[in-house]
Amino acid sequence: MLAETAKDLSRLLGDQAVITDPEAQEPFLHEWRDRYVGKAAAIVQPRTIGEVCQTLRFANENRIAVVPQGGNTGLVGGQTPDQSGSAIVLSLAKLNQIREVDPVGGVITVDSGVVLQTLQDAAVKAGRLFPLSLGAEGSCMIGGNLSTNAGGTGVLAYGNTRDLVLGLEVALPDGRLWNGLSKLRKDNTGYDLKHLFIGAEGTLGVITGASLKLFPKPKGMRTAMIGLASPYEALKLFSLMQDMAGPSLTGFEIMPRIGIEFLTRNMDGMRDPLEHEHAWYVLAEISSGRGDDDAEGLLMQSMETSFEEGLVEDAAIAQSLDQANAFWAMRHGLSEAQKPEGGSIKHDVSVPVASVADFLDEAMAAVVEMVPGCRPVPFGHLGDGNIHFNVSQPVGADRAEYLTNYETMNERVHAIVTAYGGSISAEHGIGQAKRDLLPGVKDPVALALMRTLKDAIDPNGIMNPGKVLQD
Amino acid sequence: MLAETAKDLSRLLGDQAVITDPEAQEPFLHEWRDRYVGKAAAIVQPRTIGEVCQTLRFANENRIAVVPQGGNTGLVGGQTPDQSGSAIVLSLAKLNQIREVDPVGGVITVDSGVVLQTLQDAAVKAGRLFPLSLGAEGSCMIGGNLSTNAGGTGVLAYGNTRDLVLGLEVALPDGRLWNGLSKLRKDNTGYDLKHLFIGAEGTLGVITGASLKLFPKPKGMRTAMIGLASPYEALKLFSLMQDMAGPSLTGFEIMPRIGIEFLTRNMDGMRDPLEHEHAWYVLAEISSGRGDDDAEGLLMQSMETSFEEGLVEDAAIAQSLDQANAFWAMRHGLSEAQKPEGGSIKHDVSVPVASVADFLDEAMAAVVEMVPGCRPVPFGHLGDGNIHFNVSQPVGADRAEYLTNYETMNERVHAIVTAYGGSISAEHGIGQAKRDLLPGVKDPVALALMRTLKDAIDPNGIMNPGKVLQD
Repeated sequence: MLAETAKDLSRLLGDQAVITDPEAQEPFLHEWRDRYVGKAAAIVQPRTIGEVCQTLRFANENRIAVVPQGGNTGLVGGQTPDQSGSAIVLSLAKLNQIREVDPVGGVITVDSGVVLQTLQDAAVKAGRLFPLSLGAEGSCMIGGNLSTNAGGTGVLAYGNTRDLVLGLEVALPDGRLWNGLSKLRKDNTGYDLKHLFIGAEGTLGVITGASLKLFPKPKGMRTAMIGLASPYEALKLFSLMQDMAGPSLTGFEIMPRIGIEFLTRNMDGMRDPLEHEHAWYVLAEISSGRGDDDAEGLLMQSMETSFEEGLVEDAAIAQSLDQANAFWAMRHGLSEAQKPEGGSIKHDVSVPVASVADFLDEAMAAVVEMVPGCRPVPFGHLGDGNIHFNVSQPVGADRAEYLTNYETMNERVHAIVTAYGGSISAEHGIGQAKRDLLPGVKDPVALALMRTLKDAIDPNGIMNPGKVLQD
Repeated sequence: MLAETAKDLSRLLGDQAVITDPEAQEPFLHEWRDRYVGKAAAIVQPRTIGEVCQTLRFANENRIAVVPQGGNTGLVGGQTPDQSGSAIVLSLAKLNQIREVDPVGGVITVDSGVVLQTLQDAAVKAGRLFPLSLGAEGSCMIGGNLSTNAGGTGVLAYGNTRDLVLGLEVALPDGRLWNGLSKLRKDNTGYDLKHLFIGAEGTLGVITGASLKLFPKPKGMRTAMIGLASPYEALKLFSLMQDMAGPSLTGFEIMPRIGIEFLTRNMDGMRDPLEHEHAWYVLAEISSGRGDDDAEGLLMQSMETSFEEGLVEDAAIAQSLDQANAFWAMRHGLSEAQKPEGGSIKHDVSVPVASVADFLDEAMAAVVEMVPGCRPVPFGHLGDGNIHFNVSQPVGADRAEYLTNYETMNERVHAIVTAYGGSISAEHGIGQAKRDLLPGVKDPVALALMRTLKDAIDPNGIMNPGKVLQD
């Protein structure tokens, strides 16, 4: 029966669209950390939108599960099939055309298999900015970014992926194609369907194309590394800088001293960014539509005011692009720098911005009480309230034994997050990883409404079953 | 049976929540232009969220239609019951508390019956800006703004109402309450439900509360009235100003010479804003997070460059707040100024920003061909691609006879709009007014998907029947 699925699909789409060779299948069946591994009846790589629709129609008629996959960089197992081997993995990788760039209207229209970096480059070539930016941008695909409503470092000024979308093209579970591509900034003709598919992690349909917003490219940029006493000062600094710079404040990331220590100890070429040690650090970025001098002026001015108000202990403003990149490399290197320190228990959480400092106090105390000696390394997008709350094992502890605390520590931290009205998945999504946690934290009416929508749009339950919602 | 409905509701909610007196009912049964007039079995004014839920549960069990109503300022008849007299009008006017203002987190949480201006004032009092702004702000309510995804003059910099929402609280058709209020900037835990109810015009449930984004208040502002040759120059000017000012460009409105003539002829205290006559005018506004001098510098600089590039014929920069308000009064007075000129056939349309000039050329030629001597007065939010394409009757023509062209002219203009990939309702919604036009312009799969969602969430069809979707 499994062999039948592959054969039927080959007959339908031609041999070149169906990958059956086990070795060629292998990269599609697990993700890079091997945390999620599955099997498939077939891997399909459509070359046209029509082939996507044909695949879905076939799967729907035969009640076969379909797992959509982009760049396979997701962190919650949303793109990996289960172990049954009965599912079709639908790879969008061959649908990779940039359909149109419209710099005057500020719109780029693309296939969903376009790699994020390719999309960014196309925008730059047209003198514009596509502001979505995240670690995996060299290999993740825009369809996956859309399906997971990806976050990243541009959220503070430009919003989440959701906020960058003007229109979508989506193949529905029964093979119908919804053409919702649009260049319109305003359109009030009925329900907003695009937001239903954005962030649905492929459980409602397959995004095949998108029309996305382009922005003017900033003409100047300045970056500062700032030392301060605690997240409370960081929060006040954030308010002050947002007040002074408004939408020109395009980055505001926080990290603790221990992160700097991990970086300088474990990574090549990293050095302490400031003369003295500080308990906490903020990486702030100002972008200007006018030029570098203007960005520097704005940054200097806000630093002066925050020194006067006693918020900041020390600050270094990058004097070159290299130095700015070095500051950002520290921020981006934090996960990597944790590895030589042993096991790490991770949380991708958000709380209301005004509660970040209180949350950090409470959660850090809670995990240290739970596993004495463990080392919290919380960092992330303070301006969005999104903290990557990672906790490294105690020095010299047994890695495996430490990691047995994973679930109980998650539970404890998520309980604190929930008490602050926060989210247990700020940017990575639910996938398989957090599916069973969702009922514990989500409003039950919201969960019931999600199930109602799923059943209405995908009555046969073929779209990415076992992800986001429990069966 | 109708009397029964009112009695049952009085028994359920108490007499004070049910309006039965015909005179007291009257303001709820028609809108201000009397274009839509209806009857109701009862007008209910709940004072608590619980009463909203009770009303819906009762209506759902008894299959009685419910028409939610806020400030009753909608322009497409979405808030008016039909003539059957069997519906309940559910007024949210008594749910009018501002629940919480959080200036640090940039969040305001309100009941849906709060008047927009009250909300704006509460933001200002906390040193913040709530940027939604439109003509009816003194009486429209935020619940109605949310249900229609209202536009207005702030869209260019801050987006539509949809973009200002962090979370919603919604009473579902069966009386369950979804608590989706949130202060989070990032939350990827399942389907985005709020966008389903925003812009659904009360056909899926009743919005009872919302958590909304607050922004830093601009510290400076400058406004210019600019004379230019055609919408093509206006489009180039828009590109140039957006490039130079980025998100500081907070207003960009276009109007034709005939609009200025109508204003100076028909409105008190209006005078020609520039020394000579120009074929077209742009009202541009720059906001600065730094101060008035900075806004003026930015505006001067972009005016100089656009003079050099030959885009602009003349420009006046307002030298006082009074003068800036006078410029804006011209823009806001355009509808009013048309009235003494006789009948006007209106269109609230949008096209891709890059196509605005082409669209105006084509649509103006088309209507003049259709009714020789008619006078197009297209104006609006060029930066959003949203044009209020109003067409005044020929001088001396019979008003009633001219208005017999309403539907055919609408059809002709909508066909041009649709050919440009535009929208026949940019900001006012569908309601009753455009319900029967929708099937002609909307992607049939989108329409089918809307019906699927409606049937899933409101299986008994009690929510605002006959609006948006055909029965």
